[in-house]
Amino acid sequence: MKICGIFLVVSLFSTAFSDETSDPYLLPKPSILQYPSEHNKVGGEEVNLYCTSWRFAAETNNLAPWSTIPAECADYVKDYVMGRSYSTDLERVSEEASIFASSVEFSGDGKDIWVFDIDETLLSNLPYYIDHGFGGVAPAIAPSLKLYQRVVDLGYKIFLLTGRKRATGLSLLKTSSMLVSRTGTSSFSGILGHSYKQMLSPDELHKMATLYKSEKRDEMVKEGYRIRGNSGDQWSDLLGSSMSQRSFKLPNPMYYIP
Amino acid sequence: MKICGIFLVVSLFSTAFSDETSDPYLLPKPSILQYPSEHNKVGGEEVNLYCTSWRFAAETNNLAPWSTIPAECADYVKDYVMGRSYSTDLERVSEEASIFASSVEFSGDGKDIWVFDIDETLLSNLPYYIDHGFGGVAPAIAPSLKLYQRVVDLGYKIFLLTGRKRATGLSLLKTSSMLVSRTGTSSFSGILGHSYKQMLSPDELHKMATLYKSEKRDEMVKEGYRIRGNSGDQWSDLLGSSMSQRSFKLPNPMYYIP
Repeated sequence: MKICGIFLVVSLFSTAFSDETSDPYLLPKPSILQYPSEHNKVGGEEVNLYCTSWRFAAETNNLAPWSTIPAECADYVKDYVMGRSYSTDLERVSEEASIFASSVEFSGDGKDIWVFDIDETLLSNLPYYIDHGFGGVAPAIAPSLKLYQRVVDLGYKIFLLTGRKRATGLSLLKTSSMLVSRTGTSSFSGILGHSYKQMLSPDELHKMATLYKSEKRDEMVKEGYRIRGNSGDQWSDLLGSSMSQRSFKLPNPMYYIP
Repeated sequence: MKICGIFLVVSLFSTAFSDETSDPYLLPKPSILQYPSEHNKVGGEEVNLYCTSWRFAAETNNLAPWSTIPAECADYVKDYVMGRSYSTDLERVSEEASIFASSVEFSGDGKDIWVFDIDETLLSNLPYYIDHGFGGVAPAIAPSLKLYQRVVDLGYKIFLLTGRKRATGLSLLKTSSMLVSRTGTSSFSGILGHSYKQMLSPDELHKMATLYKSEKRDEMVKEGYRIRGNSGDQWSDLLGSSMSQRSFKLPNPMYYIP
């Protein structure tokens, strides 16, 4: 998922959010990655060991908060997301989630739901970052779409819970129609966007995605919904109050959102 | 951490728990790993891609529950734990936890605590598994011990929360004295072992570690303690109610405890 200012990553991604700098509710701007010259000398095996360990720490939320990929891991992360590892990981999460989704016994009252984050969960911003394109190039993530269709077929209601907000870039309406056109489905029951209005202090900014998503899940639970599954690429999609019966963490070594 | 019957792993580990089969409160016995012959033909790069993805899924809790390492990943996991990757990961978690521990502002009332799991967190059972030794060979995990000493020095109270129970193998008293002798410290404020007596249904068995540890954390919170950090190698050490301000997931691709 991606909210306004995300903690960023690889230098080639760094200007992609320059249209958002005037918003007072932003998280710190993405950093531009510096390559210290001494890191160029580090050998391949050492880098691989170090960066795999870094990725493990990032993905298990041991690293949080982190703002930039370590300089020596920039190529590692690029290879990861552009190569087969990222797609293999995405497929695995989709399959595991699908197995769990199929195992839930429904009461049949239509109150069983699955929550999806949008950015880096249903839609990939990779082409957007790489090309510096601002035309909204966010293709569907195929394995997630497969899971989406699977849980729809199983009878879950879908709620989309996104950090995207109305004030910047893509409106929720635009997001909705983009989702429909990219994923070929309009079967979600709700799409809930971020409003930062009530949260302004630095402390609250720091944890706003976790807070916001927890509040929205609280509301779902109050309305009698049972949150069976939750798919997101950030721990702030998954942790907090009213956590789902099972959470599925999609890989994202590119940026971190608190 | 390790409770009575753990979901196991590599075939050479599989007989280590044969002394626990008569206990009615056990989780399913560790499985013996079978090597299907067709998997022997899979190439190194493919196996590495597959097994790294499997490990990511296991460590992020996407895979749960899992009972055995995939046959084709047995060597991968063995290489991981016996090589430098495991120790690098353990050091990273320790360092990140230490950074967080240092950042917490104390009120000075002695109510700030850090929870440690024991097995595969403070003590390693690797030699025990590998040698089939039953003499209690569980050396300290050096990076965790470093963190332990660091949080003690910072002024945290330590609580040990373990799945070890009185009925099998090592008693809590034995565990305590072993901890003191292996780690050279006796500075923990409490050590809380598992009692399964109140949980007997299959449903409860399925989630007993998470439940038990949550209950114990609930008690800590009721007593006015602030759980600042929690270090454990299983998600059942970390998730549930009264979760700590920050959780630190140590690597363990060897077994899974619900």
